[in-house]
Amino acid sequence: MSDAQDSIFSLILSGKIPSHKVYEDDFVYAFLDINPLTRGHTLVIPKEESPTMDSLSEDSAASLGRVLPKICRAIMQVTGASNYNLIQNNGESAGQTVPHLHIHIIPRYSDSDHSFVWNPKSINHLDAKDIAESIFTLIK
Amino acid sequence: MSDAQDSIFSLILSGKIPSHKVYEDDFVYAFLDINPLTRGHTLVIPKEESPTMDSLSEDSAASLGRVLPKICRAIMQVTGASNYNLIQNNGESAGQTVPHLHIHIIPRYSDSDHSFVWNPKSINHLDAKDIAESIFTLIK
Repeated sequence: MSDAQDSIFSLILSGKIPSHKVYEDDFVYAFLDINPLTRGHTLVIPKEESPTMDSLSEDSAASLGRVLPKICRAIMQVTGASNYNLIQNNGESAGQTVPHLHIHIIPRYSDSDHSFVWNPKSINHLDAKDIAESIFTLIK
Repeated sequence: MSDAQDSIFSLILSGKIPSHKVYEDDFVYAFLDINPLTRGHTLVIPKEESPTMDSLSEDSAASLGRVLPKICRAIMQVTGASNYNLIQNNGESAGQTVPHLHIHIIPRYSDSDHSFVWNPKSINHLDAKDIAESIFTLIK
């Protein structure tokens, strides 16, 4: 991926490329995905240039979180969908194609064909205890 | 789905069911998924009882957003994964199985087999203009 500065979303934020805007405040911009999985498929992005969630500032992340409930409510009300997925991919091998953090809000309809290959394993409790304690200690 | 009050996550929050905790503050709790897709698969939940994103309070949503960067960083550092997906499903037909809002953080490794069926369509700009304006007006 190239730098976030070069991404198509920077051009949308600067107004150089038009978009179907659904929301904007000082920290957040939301618009319809131009290649929607379903009708009303929306992208919510921080104005801060960050490719992935781990590199986003806490203030931008909080602003992004704060607006999600009302954006979801409005999308559901306008599209009539009652179920939906939020997906946020980090890194090329995780399916990210634009190197500017974006949250997909994807309404589901009865004929929606997007789905996940979801093959859970059984947890290894001994290993889990180890990594949970390591993560906990790191965040503290 | 039953009420959020009855969910297994309420029992985890109240300590009646043990979990591999990776983070906790006044508003948010995070722990390892007991049926992980990959090693380090983590669930981040608000302490507020809300089944879906659209019904979550703005303050809880902001708190949830604020902690995501540091939780993601710690998971990546401990697991060694550099790519990851965030997924949050709303409603049974969207794949939600526990009726308490939860964000999956799923590290990806070279052998990760979770993936999306992603079949984008071309946008209908006339319809998109309509629904974007309707959503924009509703949120304002």
